[in-house]
Amino acid sequence: MSDASRDNAIMMTPKALQAFLLAHIALARPMQVEVRHVDDRQVVLAAPLTPNLNHHGTVFGGSAAAVSILAAWSLLHVRLDAAGIEAQLVVHRTNMEYMQPIDGDFTATGSMADPTEWDDFVQRLQRKGRARLRLKAVLAIAGTALARLEGEFVARRPD
Amino acid sequence: MSDASRDNAIMMTPKALQAFLLAHIALARPMQVEVRHVDDRQVVLAAPLTPNLNHHGTVFGGSAAAVSILAAWSLLHVRLDAAGIEAQLVVHRTNMEYMQPIDGDFTATGSMADPTEWDDFVQRLQRKGRARLRLKAVLAIAGTALARLEGEFVARRPD
Repeated sequence: MSDASRDNAIMMTPKALQAFLLAHIALARPMQVEVRHVDDRQVVLAAPLTPNLNHHGTVFGGSAAAVSILAAWSLLHVRLDAAGIEAQLVVHRTNMEYMQPIDGDFTATGSMADPTEWDDFVQRLQRKGRARLRLKAVLAIAGTALARLEGEFVARRPD
Repeated sequence: MSDASRDNAIMMTPKALQAFLLAHIALARPMQVEVRHVDDRQVVLAAPLTPNLNHHGTVFGGSAAAVSILAAWSLLHVRLDAAGIEAQLVVHRTNMEYMQPIDGDFTATGSMADPTEWDDFVQRLQRKGRARLRLKAVLAIAGTALARLEGEFVARRPD
């Protein structure tokens, strides 16, 4: 059985991830973030326009950044959970590009920047207790990408 | 009279900026953003830990990004207002670095990445109707910098 199918067998449900985000990330509730889909390759979050508005009637860049970070972070969280690895995750650096105004309800799809990095990441985390992984998130409306984030996240095993 | 002192004479008050943010940026209220200081060089915002918490009991990276973008954007907003220039401002790209966990109430200080770029920015905006400016924000607790953002913002004159 491949790593991917083993992970899938115990992948966190959208409902469980949603409960985690609402319980632990204070901003998830006012941004009205909803978990749409979870698998071992991607996590899809959704957020409505209204609670994330700016003065132009489009999505505030800060809301876009926050939902992007949450989507990228969530993919790493569910992957580590599926692999049975306990670790603290923090964002270390991010680059974000806003290509077009986000003028409606939107999705944020979190995934690995390069899926081939996963095995090295897990090995380093197990061996050294600390490892970095690059994740990305794409914000879209109806399949059209409007903004994207790439970020480096750090995982640390408990002492 | 220099440009700077002319700007200062009609610089928006913290109270006016606060009212603008609360009225127009939906996330400003749940993040409990407060305007502490406004002058022609910097805008200082403050936000408490509690409404911005993550699951580690520190500030969620997305809240940190959102308050940073707001601080940087605010400096450009008050400078253009003081100069009597009407323009739409949008964030185009950002880089953010998280140096240390933000484990308490924090400030975000927005300023220009390079103040010498201002005159060129204004001239280009007046002549071409569109110009870019680099802004930065530093997140700190009691004077210690914990995270920083640099971003490129685009101003557009009304058609």
